[in-house]
Amino acid sequence: MDTVAIFGVGLIGGSFALAIRKAGFTGRIIGVSSDHTIRAALALQVIDEALPAQHAAAQADLLYLSQPIHKIIDSLAEFDSRVKPGALITDAGSTKQAIVDRASQVISRAQFLGGHPMAGRERRGVEAAEADLFQGRPYVLTPRSASELETPAAREFLSWIPKIGSLPVIMSPQEHDRTVAFTSHLPQLASTALAAMLDGLPEPQTSVYGPALVDSTRLALSSFDIWGDILDTNRHQILAALASYIAKLEEFREHLDQDAMRRHFDAAGRLAAQVRDRN
Amino acid sequence: MDTVAIFGVGLIGGSFALAIRKAGFTGRIIGVSSDHTIRAALALQVIDEALPAQHAAAQADLLYLSQPIHKIIDSLAEFDSRVKPGALITDAGSTKQAIVDRASQVISRAQFLGGHPMAGRERRGVEAAEADLFQGRPYVLTPRSASELETPAAREFLSWIPKIGSLPVIMSPQEHDRTVAFTSHLPQLASTALAAMLDGLPEPQTSVYGPALVDSTRLALSSFDIWGDILDTNRHQILAALASYIAKLEEFREHLDQDAMRRHFDAAGRLAAQVRDRN
Repeated sequence: MDTVAIFGVGLIGGSFALAIRKAGFTGRIIGVSSDHTIRAALALQVIDEALPAQHAAAQADLLYLSQPIHKIIDSLAEFDSRVKPGALITDAGSTKQAIVDRASQVISRAQFLGGHPMAGRERRGVEAAEADLFQGRPYVLTPRSASELETPAAREFLSWIPKIGSLPVIMSPQEHDRTVAFTSHLPQLASTALAAMLDGLPEPQTSVYGPALVDSTRLALSSFDIWGDILDTNRHQILAALASYIAKLEEFREHLDQDAMRRHFDAAGRLAAQVRDRN
Repeated sequence: MDTVAIFGVGLIGGSFALAIRKAGFTGRIIGVSSDHTIRAALALQVIDEALPAQHAAAQADLLYLSQPIHKIIDSLAEFDSRVKPGALITDAGSTKQAIVDRASQVISRAQFLGGHPMAGRERRGVEAAEADLFQGRPYVLTPRSASELETPAAREFLSWIPKIGSLPVIMSPQEHDRTVAFTSHLPQLASTALAAMLDGLPEPQTSVYGPALVDSTRLALSSFDIWGDILDTNRHQILAALASYIAKLEEFREHLDQDAMRRHFDAAGRLAAQVRDRN
């Protein structure tokens, strides 16, 4: 793997470039992004050079697609006729089924392997990129069959995941999407629903609060520009997660007594501690 | 106001002692707490001396009750026969109606004025106390009538609230409890419900997650030892807040389309920004 092309040099794409560089990658890193982002990425030395998409695609051994989900889906077809034989196309989209399905339809000359590094920051954009973003975080890979992990290009890409400090996790696209519906998409919607509901209340019901409300509405600052695509491509699993959450809240409403609520607090504390243990 | 007695020298009571001392209070600060806490509070110079409750009550011009809600409710009756005439009893309980109602039944020789500083930290106990805990936070006072704020003892206590950096907010006990049901108790239950629901799911649905889940389950670490009393004394308002939250989540489930969800994200982002502006 001599040349890596990052399509969409934002927080994730930029961090991947910085992370492999820090881990010892000595080849070329090409960036494909908007003019504004490219200027910043070059100035910050996140990428070595900038090229138009078709030229980057033709030169890269690894194509790393870290754009919005629908942008990835819409641009996949353009790559197949341009890439080098033996190149690997991977992505960092937050949902996997729709992307992997599309890739299986339109990619035949190169190999596609879906991925999702479970990392993030409040700040977005290449300015927020950092080499350690993936450190200690799961990096999900979603092959359609295990053999996809055995090609030379896939093996080389996989070898970089522990080098950047990430923990590879292999799941089917469907299993991934069901999992993140509960662990990522539902927490987002829980915060959005809380903040959106409070937004409709009259003063003073929203003027007197402690630090907990600031915490609980942090995710509610997230941009719909990112979440629109996620909701659109994981609708079914998100509806199931919402239903489970509503059922738990209904349980609280029906049995808001000391014994039942102590059990719920105990279970919640156990999960919250477990999430921190592994973190 | 020469002598202040803090009943329950934990995070809030200890911080109140440190805050008035920093703001220039030169009188005596007596602590009433468990042996373990008293030793720590004396070592940390949070209080000047320790006394049994009845002696502290007899000497104080201001009695500051910062214990669990039911402890406050259960001990209020003991104070009335012991306090100095003209003393002020105030509290820092997280719900107000039940405490104020009880005080109106059992306090006649002294004055009672309910209060709730909207401050907190993840860590509890006197070791976590700090003089700046109330800085920039609302300090709610819940008189049953405005005249309660005009007595000499109330005026003197009120004069310390801006001095410790807090913003006094006057509300009825009922209005306070309705407000915090939405801005404090609901965020807690939203996090507890999320974590408790996830605790029941099989692997790998809880092993792959990003930083958002760690954030969203922070409140779920809260101890039921505190929350049991809150749920018990604000049941009615909490049920109403839960119902509003469930209704908003049901709206998401029924209309998980781009236009509707963009509007919800916009409303949520507005509230989340507003909460940060004021903070």
